[in-house]
Amino acid sequence: MSLIVQKFGGSSVGDAEGIKRVAKRIVESRKRGDDVVVVVSAMGDTTDELLDLAHQVVPSLPTGGRELDMLLTAGERISMALLAMSIKAQGAEAVSFTGSQAGMLTDDRHGAARIVSVTPGRVRDALDKGQIAIVQGFAGFNKVTGDITTLGRGGSDTSAVALAAALRADVCEIYTDVDGVFSADPRVIPRARRIPRVTSEEMLELAAGGAKVLHIRSVEYARRHGVTLHVRSSFTNDEGTIVYDPERAGSQMEEPMIVGVAHDLSEAKVTVVGTPDVPGTAARIFTIVAETGANIDMIVQNVSEAATGRTDISFTLPKEEAGGVLDALESHREAVGFEQLHYDDQIGKLALVGAGMRTNAGVSARLFKALSDADINIEMISTSEIRISVVTRADQLIDAVRVVHSAFELDADEEAVVHAGTGR
Amino acid sequence: MSLIVQKFGGSSVGDAEGIKRVAKRIVESRKRGDDVVVVVSAMGDTTDELLDLAHQVVPSLPTGGRELDMLLTAGERISMALLAMSIKAQGAEAVSFTGSQAGMLTDDRHGAARIVSVTPGRVRDALDKGQIAIVQGFAGFNKVTGDITTLGRGGSDTSAVALAAALRADVCEIYTDVDGVFSADPRVIPRARRIPRVTSEEMLELAAGGAKVLHIRSVEYARRHGVTLHVRSSFTNDEGTIVYDPERAGSQMEEPMIVGVAHDLSEAKVTVVGTPDVPGTAARIFTIVAETGANIDMIVQNVSEAATGRTDISFTLPKEEAGGVLDALESHREAVGFEQLHYDDQIGKLALVGAGMRTNAGVSARLFKALSDADINIEMISTSEIRISVVTRADQLIDAVRVVHSAFELDADEEAVVHAGTGR
Repeated sequence: MSLIVQKFGGSSVGDAEGIKRVAKRIVESRKRGDDVVVVVSAMGDTTDELLDLAHQVVPSLPTGGRELDMLLTAGERISMALLAMSIKAQGAEAVSFTGSQAGMLTDDRHGAARIVSVTPGRVRDALDKGQIAIVQGFAGFNKVTGDITTLGRGGSDTSAVALAAALRADVCEIYTDVDGVFSADPRVIPRARRIPRVTSEEMLELAAGGAKVLHIRSVEYARRHGVTLHVRSSFTNDEGTIVYDPERAGSQMEEPMIVGVAHDLSEAKVTVVGTPDVPGTAARIFTIVAETGANIDMIVQNVSEAATGRTDISFTLPKEEAGGVLDALESHREAVGFEQLHYDDQIGKLALVGAGMRTNAGVSARLFKALSDADINIEMISTSEIRISVVTRADQLIDAVRVVHSAFELDADEEAVVHAGTGR
Repeated sequence: MSLIVQKFGGSSVGDAEGIKRVAKRIVESRKRGDDVVVVVSAMGDTTDELLDLAHQVVPSLPTGGRELDMLLTAGERISMALLAMSIKAQGAEAVSFTGSQAGMLTDDRHGAARIVSVTPGRVRDALDKGQIAIVQGFAGFNKVTGDITTLGRGGSDTSAVALAAALRADVCEIYTDVDGVFSADPRVIPRARRIPRVTSEEMLELAAGGAKVLHIRSVEYARRHGVTLHVRSSFTNDEGTIVYDPERAGSQMEEPMIVGVAHDLSEAKVTVVGTPDVPGTAARIFTIVAETGANIDMIVQNVSEAATGRTDISFTLPKEEAGGVLDALESHREAVGFEQLHYDDQIGKLALVGAGMRTNAGVSARLFKALSDADINIEMISTSEIRISVVTRADQLIDAVRVVHSAFELDADEEAVVHAGTGR
């Protein structure tokens, strides 16, 4: 008998029919004899509808905040209660738990709370009684203030992984609207191939590179706590993708050189032009940037022009964080001593990922040649041991993904089936 | 400085505009220097929409239950969070509390929980900090199971009254969509008159007689704990109605003879025909009825027919409880020894209420004459010290209310203004 944590996203429980379908699936898992803990997101667009209501009431609503967490957690409360009801109506025992009841203890950063400990005593009691435990995704509880918190983006996935870790579950199944992790986004590369197994390290790079199927935070948590993830579609019975830690799994399997190509159109590039080429300049710039809370991705510094003693520093970051960063830099122009700021939101990022890169020479050469053959200009390059990222013009990005996907022989024989929508 | 509890029903917070309007009102109260605790219902039709969703998922959904309470409390959670946000946006400090956080402790009867104690420590702390405390109406918490409960019908009013009692508030203001308590329902008697002051005893009789403005349970709770209620419209600044305890208030004021006429079309009449006229028959019948959980209202037993030694017993009860009662009686036909069961759902009930009845003879004669002059037949009569109730044909009830209202000179000079909708 195994202990399985199953997480269902908002698109899986979009309406009453979705709830019943998911409940049926859960009951089938239970009937196979496993202990089942379920983490559920808010139904379909509920979170957006609640946010919209909040903006109607307070047009200039600040993000985060105690009352916003109180509001948004109503969404998961509705879906978890309905799911428990549906499971009971289908003949199994179920009981729903709020984040607080499930012992999901966090700090007090409303809207982006960090898990400090997970004490799922009531969940375990429910399992001991043969019940299916349904846990509110996204929601936490701060013991000091006694207040409800939310985990922010990727929250429900993180709830599921944290529960799986605390309960020492055999696997954490993440049900979504795609059939697993693909070698590229099947919505833009129809011949993308499902990846049967991927290491958590590779998955982290894919998520950081823009793959939407798993949020980077939950993958990180899973890797740190040795939780095996199983990404599956809630609409099919396909095998999905296992995300595992090769060391813990004791795997002797030779890893494929490349697992996939991620892409991302959500970033912009900021260039700080004409900065003094002296020690401490980069530190000054990125201290100012860090104070805005922005998440910097790639950083590139040009070769200094000896004649002027000046250089340019470029970095990429999420578009919605650019305004604050530009304002902050502008207000420190004299202290930093730069000449100009350039802002470019027409960029795209491609990330080629594979643990086999470590032992295979020539991957970058093959990548650059494929792009060059397609007349696609590379504007920035950044690498890790198992990833190469390049920045291109936004309107060339999908072409870039296509030619790279082919160049590394990732194309499948058949086109993937894509379902609509994405969960949180 | 006073401490005021204000309760706003669902119709007062039907949409974002309603929330903002109510928030403005609350902020104005706070600015007058009073400490303010607010209890709020779910927005508009939210509760019905959640129930509808539950029925889509489980068509044969049982009433009550842990998961249904989890589901329904999402409604009040949404409205209280939005209200707190709106108050803060309008420049005052506010913090929302769930039933559990506000110390609303109940037994574990899901869907119809009884309050066992109220320990509003966090509410008091918020007031001490100068904050407005927003409390989730309808919701409670059972300490033994650690589960969320709901108070059932009239729940939010009861939440408000219980908090007012625990906090020793100076007054509990119940904001609704009418301008107070009227001498008759202004929707059917346009010349109904607002009652400026009514004793809690009279209010109990009016509520029991079918007046919808306050739920009988909250009036009972207020009377037992000496809470003064103030029923007001959230749409106007009219004076509304004070519901008070004359003994506690030390009032020397002469009470008016009649305060109003309530009516009720929600009941049906059951007649047990040909029961043995021997001691114990009524006890047997009403023991069977009580076991179904039905709420019996009026009971009338005919004079026995000496020739047969048999008599008829009639009683009224809410229509939706009649099916279970008829089934229960039918299955005990032999044990009770009755001949037939009659069921009549075409009845109406009128209740004339006034504390002055105690010291005024001739009230019943005047009532019966008014009905007789209008050719309205009386089918049942029941009285208390301060109330006379009669049952008529359903289609004659509104006429009956009209002629009685006039006969006791309750008609106002002008027609009342009626707003749409009713809160919970």
